[in-house]
Amino acid sequence: MSKSETAERIVHVPLGERAYDILIGPGLIAKAGGEISTRIKGRRAAIVTDANVGALYLDGLMDSLQTDGIEAVSVTLPAGEKTKSFESLTEVCDVLLEARIERNDAVIALGGGVIGDLTGFAAGIVRRGVRFVQIPTSLLSQVDSSVGGKTGINTRHGKNLVGVFNQPDLVIADTDILNTLSEREFRAGYAEVAKYGLIDKPDFFEWLERNWQDVFAGGPARIEAIAQSCQAKADVVVADERENGRRALLNLGHTFGHALEAVTEYDSSRLVHGEGVSIGMVLAHRFSARLNLASPDLADRVERHLKAVGLPTRMSEIPGELAPTDALMAAIAQDKKVKGGKLTFILTRDLGQSFVADDVPVSEVHRFLEEMRVV
Amino acid sequence: MSKSETAERIVHVPLGERAYDILIGPGLIAKAGGEISTRIKGRRAAIVTDANVGALYLDGLMDSLQTDGIEAVSVTLPAGEKTKSFESLTEVCDVLLEARIERNDAVIALGGGVIGDLTGFAAGIVRRGVRFVQIPTSLLSQVDSSVGGKTGINTRHGKNLVGVFNQPDLVIADTDILNTLSEREFRAGYAEVAKYGLIDKPDFFEWLERNWQDVFAGGPARIEAIAQSCQAKADVVVADERENGRRALLNLGHTFGHALEAVTEYDSSRLVHGEGVSIGMVLAHRFSARLNLASPDLADRVERHLKAVGLPTRMSEIPGELAPTDALMAAIAQDKKVKGGKLTFILTRDLGQSFVADDVPVSEVHRFLEEMRVV
Ligand SMILES: NC(=O)c1ccc[n+]([C@@H]2O[C@H](COP(=O)([O-])OP(=O)(O)OC[C@H]3O[C@@H](n4cnc5c(N)ncnc54)[C@H](O)[C@@H]3O)[C@@H](O)[C@H]2O)c1
Ligand SMILES: NC(=O)c1ccc[n+]([C@@H]2O[C@H](COP(=O)([O-])OP(=O)(O)OC[C@H]3O[C@@H](n4cnc5c(N)ncnc54)[C@H](O)[C@@H]3O)[C@@H](O)[C@H]2O)c1
Ligand SMILES: [Zn+2]
Ligand SMILES: [Zn+2]
Repeated sequence: MSKSETAERIVHVPLGERAYDILIGPGLIAKAGGEISTRIKGRRAAIVTDANVGALYLDGLMDSLQTDGIEAVSVTLPAGEKTKSFESLTEVCDVLLEARIERNDAVIALGGGVIGDLTGFAAGIVRRGVRFVQIPTSLLSQVDSSVGGKTGINTRHGKNLVGVFNQPDLVIADTDILNTLSEREFRAGYAEVAKYGLIDKPDFFEWLERNWQDVFAGGPARIEAIAQSCQAKADVVVADERENGRRALLNLGHTFGHALEAVTEYDSSRLVHGEGVSIGMVLAHRFSARLNLASPDLADRVERHLKAVGLPTRMSEIPGELAPTDALMAAIAQDKKVKGGKLTFILTRDLGQSFVADDVPVSEVHRFLEEMRVV
Repeated sequence: MSKSETAERIVHVPLGERAYDILIGPGLIAKAGGEISTRIKGRRAAIVTDANVGALYLDGLMDSLQTDGIEAVSVTLPAGEKTKSFESLTEVCDVLLEARIERNDAVIALGGGVIGDLTGFAAGIVRRGVRFVQIPTSLLSQVDSSVGGKTGINTRHGKNLVGVFNQPDLVIADTDILNTLSEREFRAGYAEVAKYGLIDKPDFFEWLERNWQDVFAGGPARIEAIAQSCQAKADVVVADERENGRRALLNLGHTFGHALEAVTEYDSSRLVHGEGVSIGMVLAHRFSARLNLASPDLADRVERHLKAVGLPTRMSEIPGELAPTDALMAAIAQDKKVKGGKLTFILTRDLGQSFVADDVPVSEVHRFLEEMRVV
């Protein structure tokens, strides 16, 4: 792991015609106008943000754009997952058309994953696609949702069921911006950072075990962790843009995590996504031990680290009464196709040695969860 | 022009990974289940249609799918341009998700361009893309909208402003189905058929001059005309999938046509799209003569043919009072970007020798329209 003290990092995502850069560093929002104007031809922009982020950073971004000769309008939506809806999509498209955003103008997502997913979708369909810039403001969106091109909204049938693949033209991850993120949201995003280590980067996981406090505190370690994470995700995306093979590894901890989110009805007072992923990753490691694929010590080690940073690691930590195991299994079956009584899971053989197992018996999972819910 | 008597024609659209076939022939709807089941893995389908077309052909299509082991649901929307809206899009997505349509299942558009554009958009965004089959039922949709991958809806800001590029996996153009289309809609679609001749196929235009009555009557000449048109559009699309250069030629007659549609407020009792295109193509040829690019005889010849088939060829034929020339010019400026007082038009040098002219003075167009509105 390099101990570089460079303030700014660039992760290039080499997707041919759709290649783009992820800029990572402190104070980048103040330079956004310059970065955008040198890369995107149009002289108009529209910023989409949410009420929390808008209150803190919209004016600064507008100033920066104006300084560099970009005329911008903005729309501020309510914060929260409910904003990923057809209604908000319609509203954002209307704003973009009203502002006469054309093919070479920039639509800028200023916010967490909710704003990024919604805005990327709108930018992908207005005039069948206009330029799109991500300014992710949550840790989760900096290391995960803003990289990879998946955009979308939720419907009553589930999360992210409607959307497009739309790679951004530029991602600007201002690492200082995370200072105003709540501790809880920062930790939730950190679960995804740790995930990259657990997938296939044991050195990175070990580095996190040693340096996580500095990542939380800000400064070079935070930049390093975000850059490593973006690089890890970008590598997977480049190998598998449309999600057929390797990209599935990114779901480590997510089958269990999504099921927990579903049975807690996406009630963020009980569980946010990264918390579900944290519990899910520990479960995936314990389940790998149960199947004699990995040692129980590994699961202990993973749990120890996630606990240290303050993340929940067990189902019993979720406030309120947990739905029965059958409900969890139903949620899993909803998320993943069950083929002949078998499920696909991401399991592991050792630290950072995860793999896709597509023959996990439903009955084993059921038994396992039944036990784990009470520990 | 081949005088082939083969009942069925296939136009292959070689777009690499997105390559697909257009099947053209009589009675194909009864064979749809077989064609779909051999090309698409999934065993579920959802049909989107409109009230007019659904009443006539939905049962037959459902039967055919069932015979070939495809379980289908359907949704029937009101006929007409208003159906290309965010509300209908939301409704169709909801139906597709409710029916548990997955990536390898087919979403089938059974209808004219309205249903095709809306359904193709929905199929492109549900689960970020599922299989998509076009069964175009109007002449316009068989020769134009079902080929090329443009999908979308309208907003209060204008037509087709929101959508995606989504190439179908299969197009089934049943030429018998056109027998129930109104004479007026058939003629409107025919304007687009003639357009392909005028763009760059003088032999095809001459063939149409001789054989148009057989095209209207049905039989081999109709199949031939549709196959030639699909081939012509496919050639352009393959050369220029994302519309930068040559694809612009497909807009022959459309700048004037769109302006006429706009000032008649898309009121189909006054003007339908193909009628606007017919008048627009005559105007484009007259304007080419005015600019000394082509002979006035050519414009006469084009007008004579379109008149013969029963299409309007002059602005004065549009029922009701025509908006002032300034309103027409405003509509043109809305449609096309004006750069330094110049407009881009598709003009022509001779029969089937059209080209993109990007330096047409706005003032010339104004003067020309001012004269033409009264003849
Ligand atoms: N597209 C993808 O590949 C992908 C991947 C993972 C997650 N996601 C999606 O991302 C979403 C979750 O993203 P998220 O966790 O960023 O949620 P979020 O966008 O709701 O942000 C979390 C909260 O933090 C606030 N916030 C964000 N940045 C802030 C800042 N700098 N200062 C103060 N407050 C700030 C927000 O207003 C919000 O209340 C989900 O909808 C999920 O489906 C998408
Ligand atoms: N995607 C593209 O590239 C493209 C190209 C050109 C036009 N379009 C779009 O296509 C639309 C126009 O298409 P259209 O002219 O087919 O309109 P349409 O879909 O409204 O059909 C015209 C009318 O004919 C009826 N109809 C269709 N087939 C019939 C049949 N076989 N028997 C009886 N009635 C039938 C319909 O119910 C409707 O009332 C417009 O929205 C236009 O923007 C798209
Ligand atoms: Zn996640
Ligand atoms: Zn047309």
